Amino acid sequence: MLGRLNHVAIAVKDAVQAAKVYGAGFDAAISEAVPLPEHGVITVFVTLPNTKIEFIQPLGEASPIAKFLERNADGGIHHVCYEVPDIIEARDRLTKEGARVLGDGNPKIGAHGKPVLFFHPKDFSGALVEIEQA
Amino acid sequence: MLGRLNHVAIAVKDAVQAAKVYGAGFDAAISEAVPLPEHGVITVFVTLPNTKIEFIQPLGEASPIAKFLERNADGGIHHVCYEVPDIIEARDRLTKEGARVLGDGNPKIGAHGKPVLFFHPKDFSGALVEIEQA
Repeated sequence: MLGRLNHVAIAVKDAVQAAKVYGAGFDAAISEAVPLPEHGVITVFVTLPNTKIEFIQPLGEASPIAKFLERNADGGIHHVCYEVPDIIEARDRLTKEGARVLGDGNPKIGAHGKPVLFFHPKDFSGALVEIEQA
Repeated sequence: MLGRLNHVAIAVKDAVQAAKVYGAGFDAAISEAVPLPEHGVITVFVTLPNTKIEFIQPLGEASPIAKFLERNADGGIHHVCYEVPDIIEARDRLTKEGARVLGDGNPKIGAHGKPVLFFHPKDFSGALVEIEQA
C-alpha cells in the first residue's frame, strides 16, 4: 500500500535561487518556476532519477508555508509525499492507527492535479506527511 | 551527476516505535533495528518502491543527532542523501559553487559501507545534504 516517494518538499524564500546549486553543482535538471495561487506557493522541481525535490516558495498573503519560514529563516525540509493506490483506504487505515489527518479529512486536489491529504507531524516522528493518490 | 535519492533520514528518540505507523498504517516493509556504534545511531529502514526512509535514533554519549533531538523533541526530517557517481568530483564541484563541506572534507565510510560527505544546511536551503558514492 505504501507507494513511491513522490517528492521531498523544501520550503524556501526564493525557490529559483535555492535550486541553483542543484543545477550548477550537481548538473541536475531544474524546472521553470510555476506559480500555484490556489496552493499559495511557487514551485521549482529538481529531477532525480527516482524521485524529485520540490522547492516551495510562499505566494500571496495566506501562504501555508509562511509560518514555517518564520521559524526557519534559511528554509528547511517541509514535508515528504508518499503515493498510495487508494487515498480513502489509506486515510481510513492511517487514522485507525492513530494518525491525525489535517483539515476536514477530505482529499483536496494537490499541486500535481491529484487528490492529496496531509497528516499531523506529531504522528509521523515530526515529519509532515502528504499522501497522494497514485 | 545527481544520482538517486538514496534515502530520507528522520531523527527520532525511538526508531522502532517511529517505524510502526509505516508498518501498521501503510503495510510497508520495516527492517530490524541495526546499531551502528561507529556512527552513533541505531537505524530502522522503511522500504518504498523507489527509495527508503531511514529512522535514526541516538546511540551512545556523543551521537551526532543528540542536539537535533534536543531542538526537535518529537523528531524531524534530519537529512536527504543523494547518490553521486564520483564523490571527489562531486565534492570539488559543489565546493566550487560555494557549498561548504562538513568535517575535514575527506569522505568517511557511511552507514551503507560507502564513502559519504555532508554539506552545510545553510548552503542547501536549510536542508542537511549527504552525498554517497553510488
